[in-house]
Amino acid sequence: MKYGIAFFPSKELQDLANSYRMRYDPHYALIPPHITLKNPFEAENEELKTITDKLHDISKNHSSIPLNIVKVSSFYPVNNVIYLKIELNSELLNLHSALNSGFFHDNSDYQFVPHITIGQSLSDDEHSDVLGQLRMSKVQHKETIDRFHLLYQLENGSWTVYETFQLGKDC
Amino acid sequence: MKYGIAFFPSKELQDLANSYRMRYDPHYALIPPHITLKNPFEAENEELKTITDKLHDISKNHSSIPLNIVKVSSFYPVNNVIYLKIELNSELLNLHSALNSGFFHDNSDYQFVPHITIGQSLSDDEHSDVLGQLRMSKVQHKETIDRFHLLYQLENGSWTVYETFQLGKDC
Repeated sequence: MKYGIAFFPSKELQDLANSYRMRYDPHYALIPPHITLKNPFEAENEELKTITDKLHDISKNHSSIPLNIVKVSSFYPVNNVIYLKIELNSELLNLHSALNSGFFHDNSDYQFVPHITIGQSLSDDEHSDVLGQLRMSKVQHKETIDRFHLLYQLENGSWTVYETFQLGKDC
Repeated sequence: MKYGIAFFPSKELQDLANSYRMRYDPHYALIPPHITLKNPFEAENEELKTITDKLHDISKNHSSIPLNIVKVSSFYPVNNVIYLKIELNSELLNLHSALNSGFFHDNSDYQFVPHITIGQSLSDDEHSDVLGQLRMSKVQHKETIDRFHLLYQLENGSWTVYETFQLGKDC
C-alpha cells in the first residue's frame, strides 16, 4: 500500500488554496490542500504498527510549528508546480528531518521546500500567465500547526487519512 | 464550522465502493467512502477541545467493531440513496448511541441504518436500473474497525480529517 505523511493547514488556508486549486490543479479532488512532510512510500500491512509507533515517538518529541506563508512561487523550470511558499524554520526542518532519516529513510530527490501546491500540470504558457497573476496577489498568512497525518492512497489516486499524530503529545 | 464523525473502512472496501461511486455518486470527490456515525453538526472553534476530549473518552470506552457488509440496498422511497448495507451489531449500536446522546445530542431525523453510500442524486429511473443491477452482484465482506475520525467541511463541500480516535485506546 502507498502511504504519505502530510499536514493540513487551517480551514481558512485550505479554502484559500482551494480557490486556486479548483482552477489550476487537477489533483484538486484527490486530497485536501496540504503540506507534504514525506513523499509517498510503499509499506506492507505488517509494517504499519511499527510505522505508527515510530510516528508517535516523533510527534511526542516535536512541538507545534509556526506556519508562515510568504508568497506565491513556482518550481519552474524543474516543473510547472505553482505553490504557496512556506517560510522554512527550525521546527519544521527538524520534523521533516525526523520523517526522512533513520527508520524513515530519505525518499525525496529534492531539497525540502515546504509548500502548498495550488497549480500543476499547466502548459508553459498557462503556467507563466497564472504565475504572473498570482504573484501580484498579496498572500500572507500565519498560523500554528499542532498535528500531522499518515495517509494511504486508494486505487483512484485519492488519499484517506489513517491516523493523526499530535505534536508534543503522547498520542 | 461544520463537523462530522465517520469511519473509513479498509482500502479494499473503499476501492470497491469507489468503483460504484465514480459512476453513481456526485459526492465521489468530496470524501472517501465512509460510514457516518454522527450527522454533520455546527461547532465553534472554542468548543473543539471539549469535543475532542469527549470523543477520546468515548473511543477509550468502546472496543473494535466487527463490520459485516451483507448486501446492496436503497433508502427508496425516502430518497434515492443506494448503499452497501452493514449488519447492525451491539458494538456499532453502542458507539453510535454514545455519539448521539448526552453531550453529543441526537441530530439525526432517522433511525441509525449503518451504510456506505455508493449512489445518490439519481433520477427515479436511473435509481431503479442501477439498484436492479447492483442487487444481483454478491457483495459480502467482513472486517474489523478499530478507529473513527472527526472531520470538518471546507467551503467547497469536501471534508478534511481533524483527528483520529482509536477504539479501546487512550488516544
